[in-house]
Amino acid sequence: MKKLNYLIAFSLLVVLSILIHNCTGTGETANIEEAAKKVYVKPGSYDELYAFMSGGFNGQLSVYGLPSGRLLKNISVFSQNPETGYGYSEETKNMLMTSYGFIPWDDAHHPVLSKTNGEQDGRWIFINGNNTPRVARIDLRNFETEEIIEIPNSAGNHGSPFLTENTEYVVASTRFSIPVPNKDVSINSYKENFKGTISFISVDKNGDMNLAFQILVPGLDYDLAHAGVGPSHGWAFFTTYNSEQANSLLEINASQNDKDFIAAVNWKKAEEYLKAGKGKIVQTEFYNNEFNESTHSAISKKMNSVVVLNPKECPGLIYYIPTPKSPHGVDVDPSGEYIVAGGKLATVIPVHSFSKMMKAIEGKKFDGEFDGIPILKYEEVIAGEVQNPGLGPLHTEFDGNGYAYTSAFLSSEIVKWKLGTWEVVDRVPTYYSIGHLMIPGGDSRKPYGKYAIALNKITKDRYLPTGPELAQSAQLYDISGNKMKLLLDFPTIGEPHYAQAIPAEILMKNSNKIYQIEKNKNPYAVKSEKETRVERKGNEVHIYLSATRSHFKPDNIEGIKVGDKVYWHVTNLEQDWDIPHGFTVKGLNNSELLVMPGQTKTIVWTPLKSGIYPFYCTDFCSALHQEMQGYVRVSEANSNTKVTFN
Amino acid sequence: MKKLNYLIAFSLLVVLSILIHNCTGTGETANIEEAAKKVYVKPGSYDELYAFMSGGFNGQLSVYGLPSGRLLKNISVFSQNPETGYGYSEETKNMLMTSYGFIPWDDAHHPVLSKTNGEQDGRWIFINGNNTPRVARIDLRNFETEEIIEIPNSAGNHGSPFLTENTEYVVASTRFSIPVPNKDVSINSYKENFKGTISFISVDKNGDMNLAFQILVPGLDYDLAHAGVGPSHGWAFFTTYNSEQANSLLEINASQNDKDFIAAVNWKKAEEYLKAGKGKIVQTEFYNNEFNESTHSAISKKMNSVVVLNPKECPGLIYYIPTPKSPHGVDVDPSGEYIVAGGKLATVIPVHSFSKMMKAIEGKKFDGEFDGIPILKYEEVIAGEVQNPGLGPLHTEFDGNGYAYTSAFLSSEIVKWKLGTWEVVDRVPTYYSIGHLMIPGGDSRKPYGKYAIALNKITKDRYLPTGPELAQSAQLYDISGNKMKLLLDFPTIGEPHYAQAIPAEILMKNSNKIYQIEKNKNPYAVKSEKETRVERKGNEVHIYLSATRSHFKPDNIEGIKVGDKVYWHVTNLEQDWDIPHGFTVKGLNNSELLVMPGQTKTIVWTPLKSGIYPFYCTDFCSALHQEMQGYVRVSEANSNTKVTFN
Repeated sequence: MKKLNYLIAFSLLVVLSILIHNCTGTGETANIEEAAKKVYVKPGSYDELYAFMSGGFNGQLSVYGLPSGRLLKNISVFSQNPETGYGYSEETKNMLMTSYGFIPWDDAHHPVLSKTNGEQDGRWIFINGNNTPRVARIDLRNFETEEIIEIPNSAGNHGSPFLTENTEYVVASTRFSIPVPNKDVSINSYKENFKGTISFISVDKNGDMNLAFQILVPGLDYDLAHAGVGPSHGWAFFTTYNSEQANSLLEINASQNDKDFIAAVNWKKAEEYLKAGKGKIVQTEFYNNEFNESTHSAISKKMNSVVVLNPKECPGLIYYIPTPKSPHGVDVDPSGEYIVAGGKLATVIPVHSFSKMMKAIEGKKFDGEFDGIPILKYEEVIAGEVQNPGLGPLHTEFDGNGYAYTSAFLSSEIVKWKLGTWEVVDRVPTYYSIGHLMIPGGDSRKPYGKYAIALNKITKDRYLPTGPELAQSAQLYDISGNKMKLLLDFPTIGEPHYAQAIPAEILMKNSNKIYQIEKNKNPYAVKSEKETRVERKGNEVHIYLSATRSHFKPDNIEGIKVGDKVYWHVTNLEQDWDIPHGFTVKGLNNSELLVMPGQTKTIVWTPLKSGIYPFYCTDFCSALHQEMQGYVRVSEANSNTKVTFN
Repeated sequence: MKKLNYLIAFSLLVVLSILIHNCTGTGETANIEEAAKKVYVKPGSYDELYAFMSGGFNGQLSVYGLPSGRLLKNISVFSQNPETGYGYSEETKNMLMTSYGFIPWDDAHHPVLSKTNGEQDGRWIFINGNNTPRVARIDLRNFETEEIIEIPNSAGNHGSPFLTENTEYVVASTRFSIPVPNKDVSINSYKENFKGTISFISVDKNGDMNLAFQILVPGLDYDLAHAGVGPSHGWAFFTTYNSEQANSLLEINASQNDKDFIAAVNWKKAEEYLKAGKGKIVQTEFYNNEFNESTHSAISKKMNSVVVLNPKECPGLIYYIPTPKSPHGVDVDPSGEYIVAGGKLATVIPVHSFSKMMKAIEGKKFDGEFDGIPILKYEEVIAGEVQNPGLGPLHTEFDGNGYAYTSAFLSSEIVKWKLGTWEVVDRVPTYYSIGHLMIPGGDSRKPYGKYAIALNKITKDRYLPTGPELAQSAQLYDISGNKMKLLLDFPTIGEPHYAQAIPAEILMKNSNKIYQIEKNKNPYAVKSEKETRVERKGNEVHIYLSATRSHFKPDNIEGIKVGDKVYWHVTNLEQDWDIPHGFTVKGLNNSELLVMPGQTKTIVWTPLKSGIYPFYCTDFCSALHQEMQGYVRVSEANSNTKVTFN
């Protein structure tokens, strides 16, 4: 019977999905002239907000201006970027080291801005690597990745990197359960052998991340998360799906149960258990990579163990809240009282109450347990259900004025509803098939509001076609009035799973313009043209090159031999804003280097043939940029040419 | 005295340059509401034009919509792209093969749309790789790179890929001279040993490129080019700088002479000389890589020789036209009569006359020769000089109504002037420091006009700051009236050296929506789920995987061993537009795959440790996308687990 219900529901979803994918529409567009004016940022003027959008399957983080929807920068995080040398240059390769070796790519999902008192503070932004479980921290003075930490005992780090109220912890959960520790067992032994983990990564005042502890949890799929704020500070909430514990054809087999769970974790209690010595040290290998701003270099540290708590030995650490159906997002309102879930196949939006949850725990209102975790009674925790919330509700953000906005994938809309009364007050279509939505500050204690951004999965006929591959897309809505109004469609790069936005003024004042040459501690830096030189060490040749408008020093280099490992250490001696220099040499079997003012970067070249090779500046830097070139001479391996340069 | 003059001029340039870099301005912005309306494309409506902008040092080609300035797609050309697997997947690695081995990056400069009768025909777009000399051809049905040809005997393929009137040839010149053939000589022997080459690549009716012939030319820096049209069809024009033949500190040493040259090449005559057997076959190694749409795979062909013409043996093949000063761009007007040069350090814009040139050649109005090439008398060829053209004039495009528009880097402006009278009729500032400019169709016989786009090198304070690294930028001007009006600033990715634009309707009608599964000839494709399987061949394992909403088949795979070379052949069985699937497996030490409907792609994984690894779809595809996952079991190398799958 369950299966039949499911099949009917699923067929309906498929039909609706097809209808959506084949219709065209213009939505509740505001008056065109009004909308045009609202999104137009006059040449030379600034956008009101920075928006940080995950690059999804491109592994990076992109920075947009709002309301214009203009792409300002693509920050390299988890993937190689031949444009700047990220992941190719000697200084950056270590950023992409993992216990699986060097990995040139990941799938980046959720950017989350650092918080103080639950409000955005503009210091850092975190983003998760979903495939090889990692969390990155980006420094918002330089807009560069500063740290990447790998998460062991995890597989699919989807439910992260959500932050506690004062950025004490990044919380993270494993999307896929696996044997912990991983071992060679039959996949069919899922129920017996596969486990999940929830991880807490501490963040110190400098931003340094440290894997504080993990909690071993039942073998489900842990999907998304949010930490409590205000009264619920000290708790974190994680959705799960696949409470059926299926290991094949999940689209059917993991969609059987009417309810899965939200896992409510008391991390303050976890800290007590750790102090009381309940943590077990588990040997495991993972990496913590840190980029040093002074040396311009990443150091990769191999870690060997993690402290793990087992809920069976730690009563009160974790509870399961039944939640319909295959829940995806879990979001905490600015007051910290309401915990809103989005069930992919649910027909309501369940809103749990933190205070009711605490009472239910106190009164032991349990409905059995799951693998040792007490299951709270749904009716004892639920604050209300939003009826008629759209098909496939996924994520909710808040405007700070008592309203919540939920994305619904299947009916492709944003639904606005009132906290407390649970009544739907407005709805607006999205084109097409919204995943996450974002309100600036809409996951914080102090939403900025004003706009909602739909992060859509399909663009189809919304833009000029570009062959089989189309951009994904965002849509900007004005939510300042009672009714939401569509202002703008703008395509995005990669897949904008989630995004955050912050008022421009908070970040602008701290944004660095150059790297100070006197603070450059890169061991291969030159501080002036006088220090430039070429040194041979066996079959390694180190070229200490300076770049300034409009020449390299030295620009004639001889004495390189075929098969040498040639290190080009390029220092940009400029100290003006926005005067980068690029570097390449003909036939370079590597990426280029893009070097910011005051910075040193190194690329390795292994010349394969003798002859003359030009090198040049790849980033137009001055009227005589085209003249910024040099030559390097490569001789046969057995020749006796000596190193000379000028 | 020359040196002194140069130093004064140079100091002036530097001061001006500093002033420009430190000033702020808003330009001749149109009335704000009017501008907002003109660039606003209503949600769900289409842009008027496709713009193709070079990615510069990112090595790719990006597609924008105009007038909105929205980024629609980033086409992978010369650089690896972890997002799609380009340059990582088995099918695409061959695209980046060169005679210097596999190269993950290049510097892409000039996109040029294919032409018929000198008008844009919308079949292909070509772009050059500047560093490792290459030309790519992108198919405009799929918006994917279809062919990359390497150019031997070249170093810095800057002056390309400009097209003759009917796309008979791509013309290309070497920016840096080197010994030809390359050899191990002293850099100081530049004048004696270094040569340039000019290359003609034929294009057949299917777009296939073939290196038809090269011309050996004196050792200068060949910078930019354009082919003649109409009366000048049969000729091609190439700027040169460094007629001083300096090999060090070119910003000073190559800026001594008052005039360098435009090389005028009679390629119809070259064809005659080739027929007459004047070509010399020169042994040299280069690659021609072609992507096959049916197999979804690139094949890399190694080529071994090229036919070279020597002007000394071919009178009338090439003439030098003296041109002030360190010329950069050379542009031919829609009538084919005027050849406009942009001298980086010139105080006028010299406009040469094709008909006068022909008369001067006939009348032997020579001013000596340079290394065997006759130098035409400047005054016998010049049609007129545009006075007061801005500082550092670089590039010129045309509106088809008798006006030319020239970019001036140092004075950071667009200067509009009248062909024939040479009078400047309008000028408008750009922010900051324009390089190329582009008018849709503005290099063709039939310009579309309406807009001019400034492709700027510096953004500095034009957008919200993003740390030391800032985006480069374009500016959109309305040129439909007498006065140019600034409409919009929009940041661009990489460096937009040059761009071209074409009316949307020309491309839209041919744009493919899917790859037809029945035409999929990839040997590793599956045509249905029934064909999915796992096969071991020694220590290679081939997994033939299908992807459809919302499952992989098979999704439980066992019998893989540590150290196996595992080929994941992923076929997307969907036949709906915009339903890609992504693929990855945890710890994959490679990129992901992004697979379009009907397409097959392959990625190699070498598992390092035994255990259970999840794999999943990385591109949100349906309500149950999150359930689109599977598991693969890896056993120790010495285990006797057999391959099983379901």
